[in-house]
Amino acid sequence: MEEIIIRYLEKPKLNDPVLIEGLPGVGNVGKLAAEHMIDHLRAVKFAEIYSSHFPPQVLVNDDGTIKLVNNELYYLKQEGSDDIVILAGDYQGLTPDGQYAISDFIIKIAKDLGVKRIFTLGGYGLGRMIEHPRVLGAATNAELVEEMKNVGVTFSSGEPGSGIVGASGLLLGLGMLEGMGCVCLMGETSGYFVDPKAAQAVLEVLATVLKVKIDFTELEDKAKQIDQLTSKLKESESFPEPKKEDLGYIG
Amino acid sequence: MEEIIIRYLEKPKLNDPVLIEGLPGVGNVGKLAAEHMIDHLRAVKFAEIYSSHFPPQVLVNDDGTIKLVNNELYYLKQEGSDDIVILAGDYQGLTPDGQYAISDFIIKIAKDLGVKRIFTLGGYGLGRMIEHPRVLGAATNAELVEEMKNVGVTFSSGEPGSGIVGASGLLLGLGMLEGMGCVCLMGETSGYFVDPKAAQAVLEVLATVLKVKIDFTELEDKAKQIDQLTSKLKESESFPEPKKEDLGYIG
Amino acid sequence: MEEIIIRYLEKPKLNDPVLIEGLPGVGNVGKLAAEHMIDHLRAVKFAEIYSSHFPPQVLVNDDGTIKLVNNELYYLKQEGSDDIVILAGDYQGLTPDGQYAISDFIIKIAKDLGVKRIFTLGGYGLGRMIEHPRVLGAATNAELVEEMKNVGVTFSSGEPGSGIVGASGLLLGLGMLEGMGCVCLMGETSGYFVDPKAAQAVLEVLATVLKVKIDFTELEDKAKQIDQLTSKLKESESFPEPKKEDLGYIG
Amino acid sequence: MEEIIIRYLEKPKLNDPVLIEGLPGVGNVGKLAAEHMIDHLRAVKFAEIYSSHFPPQVLVNDDGTIKLVNNELYYLKQEGSDDIVILAGDYQGLTPDGQYAISDFIIKIAKDLGVKRIFTLGGYGLGRMIEHPRVLGAATNAELVEEMKNVGVTFSSGEPGSGIVGASGLLLGLGMLEGMGCVCLMGETSGYFVDPKAAQAVLEVLATVLKVKIDFTELEDKAKQIDQLTSKLKESESFPEPKKEDLGYIG
Repeated sequence: MEEIIIRYLEKPKLNDPVLIEGLPGVGNVGKLAAEHMIDHLRAVKFAEIYSSHFPPQVLVNDDGTIKLVNNELYYLKQEGSDDIVILAGDYQGLTPDGQYAISDFIIKIAKDLGVKRIFTLGGYGLGRMIEHPRVLGAATNAELVEEMKNVGVTFSSGEPGSGIVGASGLLLGLGMLEGMGCVCLMGETSGYFVDPKAAQAVLEVLATVLKVKIDFTELEDKAKQIDQLTSKLKESESFPEPKKEDLGYIG
Repeated sequence: MEEIIIRYLEKPKLNDPVLIEGLPGVGNVGKLAAEHMIDHLRAVKFAEIYSSHFPPQVLVNDDGTIKLVNNELYYLKQEGSDDIVILAGDYQGLTPDGQYAISDFIIKIAKDLGVKRIFTLGGYGLGRMIEHPRVLGAATNAELVEEMKNVGVTFSSGEPGSGIVGASGLLLGLGMLEGMGCVCLMGETSGYFVDPKAAQAVLEVLATVLKVKIDFTELEDKAKQIDQLTSKLKESESFPEPKKEDLGYIG
Repeated sequence: MEEIIIRYLEKPKLNDPVLIEGLPGVGNVGKLAAEHMIDHLRAVKFAEIYSSHFPPQVLVNDDGTIKLVNNELYYLKQEGSDDIVILAGDYQGLTPDGQYAISDFIIKIAKDLGVKRIFTLGGYGLGRMIEHPRVLGAATNAELVEEMKNVGVTFSSGEPGSGIVGASGLLLGLGMLEGMGCVCLMGETSGYFVDPKAAQAVLEVLATVLKVKIDFTELEDKAKQIDQLTSKLKESESFPEPKKEDLGYIG
Repeated sequence: MEEIIIRYLEKPKLNDPVLIEGLPGVGNVGKLAAEHMIDHLRAVKFAEIYSSHFPPQVLVNDDGTIKLVNNELYYLKQEGSDDIVILAGDYQGLTPDGQYAISDFIIKIAKDLGVKRIFTLGGYGLGRMIEHPRVLGAATNAELVEEMKNVGVTFSSGEPGSGIVGASGLLLGLGMLEGMGCVCLMGETSGYFVDPKAAQAVLEVLATVLKVKIDFTELEDKAKQIDQLTSKLKESESFPEPKKEDLGYIG
């Protein structure tokens, strides 16, 4: 079997597309954000990526049919603005070299599609509950850092101290080697729960930059549900202690 | 050494064969079921598969001779019905990419043999004792789901919640990419013991679908032995607590 | 870097050589036995095998010079009897596929040298102290089993229950696929200590089969030292409890 | 993606260069020493090495820009003495075969640059605080051992007992196979902290051998800071117990 297989459903012609990555990670912030964009902006799936670096697993849909775990690419055409490509999926690569292989593969596809700018989305795990999450940033050059500061992204010396691991980091690193301008947006999150609030914070920045309008009602509803859940957990005193290994700055 | 080696003892010509997979997993349900079929229907071994993805291990037979651990393919010719190919073996691949490599290899062989339908057999670990195991299903398309419902297979939304991992999942997922119709049959089991009762439940479905007659006396005897063993363990209060990691939905 | 590199110091012409393997394992029985043969029969080193499957490590000699960890091949010419090739070394492959790669490599070299018979040497871990270790056997065919029984090797149904893992197992398994006659000799050992007594038991069988004379004084001295050490440990009550994972049947 | 990628910023012509390796390891002795040399001798970066054997990670600089983790090569031209190449970096390879692949790659580059002598720098973890660290050595031949003894390096039979693992060991081992003369210099260190004192001890030896002058003020200042920190920790009784796994002889 080949290490990575891509199956195209369609080969879209895109206008200077911007690539957005949102894969599972801390607080599932990136994944939530990317899936929210796909659903609410009605992005169109055009490719499926399968890999022996993903878990050997199929998911079972509610109707009993199955799906081999994968990553997927969606596109969104915008009039008067750059087109968008979104990378979403069930898993990141399981091993370090699997992570490199898949991110390198994505960068090559991005080049073919004419991508010159990448945004990777993730969570920044704090290990404590957070009311108003900031969005931290990292970028491949100083101009992008300034541009992001202007839309409210925080750049804080020494944060994240251990860098950015996983796809959100590698797409920046490997994209930079190809001369692409890349930004990682990290929503602050406790890291204990799936975090719709952090996802919304990240998407608000992205909506401004990409000039798209996003309805956040659904994310706000999810956030309220999580808030209720955590309140109950606190009352019942079964609130989990932070575990350090759960809180890496994984995108 | 090549990653995977197949040694053919015979190259059978088969009539639209159905592939049945039963490898070690939760409660060894799939392995028990496949081996019971091989023994009682007198299936004929026609190929041995060795791989560096299996443990570096030989088994010692009772007479002191050895066997390098492997997977094996058997066939069964049926008059007036589709022929059958059975995949059984000592181990599944040890690593995720080993699992992909071996399942992909099997799918390629299945294609060469003209296989269009695959049944993978496994256990669905519940973490508690179960008197009358149901057979849960998952399939590659909605028609197969309906077909299986008609022979008593349960399709339950949200079960198994974490999907199907290992060969029983991958053969479905990779088979689907090749346009094959594939079904996973999972017998409910505690997951604590080798479970002949769950194996029988799975085989009863399979016997109906494949129009074969299977004598279950031996499995029933084994089930009684296990029942006696667990009764004694309960009395002596040394009954093991369920361990979550033992109960994956591994086929 | 290539996965495995062999550097020949000499290309000996050998007369129907028998291959003896003795690599690190349970009680270091195989390693002790092979090194004792090399030292006392003055076997000649003719090849060094390096591999990325070994640990990334150099050993430091007493004079401050270093040695990259490896496996080594020695030969021994015998008049009126088959020549002998001995495989010894610092480590076995670290991973399952590394084990397969190295054993497959050795089998190919063995074929080139004209080897038709292989003896692999190892320990059979009992988890308790043993006064008079038996030598258990396993072989690639029934004739060899009989032949070994005649020189005092024990073949006991169900022992070793979990088969033979590592090089001692794989060389048998892969050798069998090449039509070679292979025997594994396992000296019973507690598995807690390096065990010269078990090594001697294995070598006594081998000396008979290969018609070589081996002086055991040094092994007997080492055994006495170990006996004194374990007596002291018992008295001081700090005798270690058996740990199950230390006691695999690794050759 | 290729396993290892090198990007040259410049292709320097060097005069019989000596290669110095200082990568992360016990007490970060080698890394500290190599970076001190680079900074204070104003070595020039001429190549960056990226690899899927490193962690899938980018580091975030203080200004918010990122850097994909890598190893780097620097050169230093010296009049009237051999030129110097320094290998520094963020990480060593994550896996044993990754370690082999990267060290083999470095040896090939070293050969192309005309390197005939290699010094690898590391820490020798003692598991206890040490006031006046010695520098232990290991070398590829007896002449180099003598040469190093003459400049104050200690060669002590049985130290380090478990050999030298990682890049500091492999570059010696693989360099020796290529006929290069290689020395490992290990500064004694507790292994609990980053150890500037051990780095200085190693550099003092190196300065003598390479006939370079190195200003140690900065390392001395760092050592004082560490001393103050450990004094406070001792007083507060929270001084950590030595953990054996932290104290390998990793270069």
